[in-house]
Amino acid sequence: MAYRAPVSDYAFILDHVVDYARVASTARFSEADRDVVAAIIDEAAKLSNDVMAPLDRGGDLTPARLENGGVISSPGFADAFAQIAEGGWIGMLAEPDNGGMGLPLTLASVVNEMMSGACLSLALEPLMCQGQIEALEHHACDEIKALYLPKLVSGDWCGTMNLTESGAGSDVGALRTKATRNDDGSYDITGQKIYITWGDNDFSGNICHLVLARLPDGGEGTKGISLFLVPKFLPDADGEAGDANSLSVVSLEHKLGIHGSPTCVMDYNGAKGWLVGNEHEGMKCMFTMMNNARLGVGMQGVGVAEAATQKAHAYAADRVQGRTPLGADGTGAIIDHADVRRMLAVMRADTYVARCISLACGVALDLGRDDPEWQARGAFLIPIAKAFGTDIGHDVAQLGVQVHGGMGFIEETGAAQYARDARITSIYEGTNGIQAMDLVARKLMDGGEAANALLDEIEAFAEAARVSLPELAGPVWSAAETLREGLEAVLALDLNDRFAGATAFLRAFARVLGGYYHLKSALAEGEAGTRTRLARFYILRMLPEYTSLLVQARLGASDLYALTPEDLLA
Amino acid sequence: MAYRAPVSDYAFILDHVVDYARVASTARFSEADRDVVAAIIDEAAKLSNDVMAPLDRGGDLTPARLENGGVISSPGFADAFAQIAEGGWIGMLAEPDNGGMGLPLTLASVVNEMMSGACLSLALEPLMCQGQIEALEHHACDEIKALYLPKLVSGDWCGTMNLTESGAGSDVGALRTKATRNDDGSYDITGQKIYITWGDNDFSGNICHLVLARLPDGGEGTKGISLFLVPKFLPDADGEAGDANSLSVVSLEHKLGIHGSPTCVMDYNGAKGWLVGNEHEGMKCMFTMMNNARLGVGMQGVGVAEAATQKAHAYAADRVQGRTPLGADGTGAIIDHADVRRMLAVMRADTYVARCISLACGVALDLGRDDPEWQARGAFLIPIAKAFGTDIGHDVAQLGVQVHGGMGFIEETGAAQYARDARITSIYEGTNGIQAMDLVARKLMDGGEAANALLDEIEAFAEAARVSLPELAGPVWSAAETLREGLEAVLALDLNDRFAGATAFLRAFARVLGGYYHLKSALAEGEAGTRTRLARFYILRMLPEYTSLLVQARLGASDLYALTPEDLLA
Repeated sequence: MAYRAPVSDYAFILDHVVDYARVASTARFSEADRDVVAAIIDEAAKLSNDVMAPLDRGGDLTPARLENGGVISSPGFADAFAQIAEGGWIGMLAEPDNGGMGLPLTLASVVNEMMSGACLSLALEPLMCQGQIEALEHHACDEIKALYLPKLVSGDWCGTMNLTESGAGSDVGALRTKATRNDDGSYDITGQKIYITWGDNDFSGNICHLVLARLPDGGEGTKGISLFLVPKFLPDADGEAGDANSLSVVSLEHKLGIHGSPTCVMDYNGAKGWLVGNEHEGMKCMFTMMNNARLGVGMQGVGVAEAATQKAHAYAADRVQGRTPLGADGTGAIIDHADVRRMLAVMRADTYVARCISLACGVALDLGRDDPEWQARGAFLIPIAKAFGTDIGHDVAQLGVQVHGGMGFIEETGAAQYARDARITSIYEGTNGIQAMDLVARKLMDGGEAANALLDEIEAFAEAARVSLPELAGPVWSAAETLREGLEAVLALDLNDRFAGATAFLRAFARVLGGYYHLKSALAEGEAGTRTRLARFYILRMLPEYTSLLVQARLGASDLYALTPEDLLA
Repeated sequence: MAYRAPVSDYAFILDHVVDYARVASTARFSEADRDVVAAIIDEAAKLSNDVMAPLDRGGDLTPARLENGGVISSPGFADAFAQIAEGGWIGMLAEPDNGGMGLPLTLASVVNEMMSGACLSLALEPLMCQGQIEALEHHACDEIKALYLPKLVSGDWCGTMNLTESGAGSDVGALRTKATRNDDGSYDITGQKIYITWGDNDFSGNICHLVLARLPDGGEGTKGISLFLVPKFLPDADGEAGDANSLSVVSLEHKLGIHGSPTCVMDYNGAKGWLVGNEHEGMKCMFTMMNNARLGVGMQGVGVAEAATQKAHAYAADRVQGRTPLGADGTGAIIDHADVRRMLAVMRADTYVARCISLACGVALDLGRDDPEWQARGAFLIPIAKAFGTDIGHDVAQLGVQVHGGMGFIEETGAAQYARDARITSIYEGTNGIQAMDLVARKLMDGGEAANALLDEIEAFAEAARVSLPELAGPVWSAAETLREGLEAVLALDLNDRFAGATAFLRAFARVLGGYYHLKSALAEGEAGTRTRLARFYILRMLPEYTSLLVQARLGASDLYALTPEDLLA
């Protein structure tokens, strides 16, 4: 069963759930009307289905490897990357002035989902490049922009992000990589970075590393950090890749998944770099990229969930085992067994929820570029899109393994690879625990205004939907109202009490959003629609989870901290 | 961080939660008093900690492999197996007449948990042998018993179970392996079997395969199946391993986890075998073993959960990252962050629940050998012990990965191995979906009598505990009462409506049992106890999940079957 991009789902969600028309009606994105969008989605689907998906298994079996200090990529990746570049996909979000397409983030998110579902390991490379382009567009001086952006947008050169060190992961401010000033305006960078995704490859003319480091007069913590662009090959007088810089790939990690994506330990030994943004403001520059990056990672989870659902569905619709309750009225395959159909329905329903949340977030961020209220909506949705999307990515993939029974445990089947690949997404780009903390702390600093605006929208919609779909609209309205009470309770807690229930609160919010998006879909399709049946399943069976989650969200930290570290061992 | 068997937890649970004293007070198990039990647990802990645990990582890195038709086991496995055999552990459950220890299943379960936590891949070999010994003790003729049992109990020979074929997994009755009668009373077996755990090794003098096959006059389905003992080497006149039989290992599977356990495709090409039990009654013989085997697999989940918890705890107590809310009053390590402590608390609390359920099941089965009411209790608890124990095994291991952050995704850390290894346990020995179906169908055929007896016990205990621990006893009583209502509702459903909510019902029951066992533990320790703090965490935060699970359990199948196979694809 080969991955097929869920093109019709995107069209439906853009039209009926997240109201993409608003984005296309802005001056900024007026060219990205629905016809253009449909054409772009079709093109990206072809690339994903026909070029990327066939490489996914090979990337797992033949991981990227280090030879003579350079990364040798998995079979076919180099050629596929060339096709991605040729299609202009690396520059999807880049400004037209820089050679980019200037597309809305919503649309780029759709494309990222498809590519991630087709081959996550490879999809990470254009994603890293997109992040670097965004950082340079926002923060680099004109000289750097002129020198680097065209080559990055074209895919001739690739980019990486270097934040983490062995003692500085979630706490980036603890980093120890040093920068010193040179007389020519450049800097020398010395230190070791870990977990550098696509830190090297064998298909681009240069690798441009964005590296966080501390200047001698940079203070402690995050405020003393600056951002530097450190290329593998120093640009020569013509702006082409010239002499090798003083940096090297020390080793590649041996990972649970995404074997086709080289995760590098990078060593900078007085490597020459150039400042991006102002000195000591490196974290601010990183934050610019963080929204898009986190939404991008959420879409990775959705993409893998989609691929896992398709594979499990194909197996369950084909595999005959035992008499099924539907007998001759059904397919005869295991998809007719209640518990198998339940698993597939959960997979489909949650993949749909995560996709809707992410695209709603994308729309909000697109509109938010010129509207602070939408901006706040987008900011609020980001940690939910990232954490729920990636949790679902892994959970759905694990259900996919279960649907396959014993075959799921055999690597040749491919179901387990989805689970292994998806596993990193709830860890990187801010662990899902950190996303939840972001949601209940920073994203509630407005006193719950953005959250309540969203709940207002849900309740108003559910209220209106009561007429035609009372059985579905009622529970969604109640869930939103209970969530609002939960929100008030959380707002009354001090910060660490919020943190103790943060993961539960985030998931409760996602569950209720899921009810809303399923309800919207049902209303658009009417009583007899496919998505109406799916909505009924979700609202009756999956939505109620929010109640016990909100119990946890409101509890505070006292029961938790009553437990000493010793209590937590048998 | 090396695995350490949780010896003190076993002592506490046996004394205060599952009332092991009842078992020791029976004539059958009078020798297994608490002193003997303690000594046995200590010995098994030493073996697990010092001999088996050090081999776990090597088994992952150097999987069992096939060379010249024979399995070469992972480094150190052969020597460790010899020590397991020498300690008499293979014969733990075997009758003393056959050279066994004749221990209660409860105690054997404790030992199996430790060995599984230390090195699951290796622990599977003695478990397979135990299953074969049990089958032969119950069903083989005296001649076979005399010939095989001493060698199996001593570990000189090993045993396997051959049920599955490529077209016959959960539906064993679909199998196609054929048996024909020979004039000398033996049979010839021809067919291919898959997923044969430890189908071969390089450390035992013979491998004895128990093979399900169909005689020419065996009817269709499960009723036409017979069980045969098919040794790799035919016993010679002295009962020693003689000529090679006509069977072979075709290949080993490339699996997600338990790499040290060779999972074989076995080919029988007119191999000579002997009947075990009566012709056409092979499934009955398998059912005898099923209870112990399913409980054993549940314990595997608990063992891996324990190991994963220990590893994550050690990391979290050591890793410093960011300022923690406890400041100087805490450890300074990430274990002080609310969300990390929450994850560790969930890991500890659920591992504890699964352990208590499994040992309560063991006690019931031990007592049930002479008491039909306890027998019914044991039968009811088995699918819960198996499914919840293995679900928890995997979920806890995945939380362990998350606690490790980026390190969790790196294979060298070992956290991911626990998740990979545990993953098979919710699939084999009857998928957890099948366990749930067993619970709501076969295990409720008594009209809910066994279930209600258990709920009576919980409510009576909670009622009595209200005096000293009202905050904890109240929610447990309410949960049991709500579960009882849910049970009545489930009993009123027809079979397939039950199946649609079976997984949710099973988990709800486990959640409520967890409340009961945590409450018992708290009452035994009193207000200031470690387990009382853990009980509070569980009862306030984790127990409430039962409410939304019971919603699902009662729903019936209509919303599920309203969804067509096509609806389940985007």
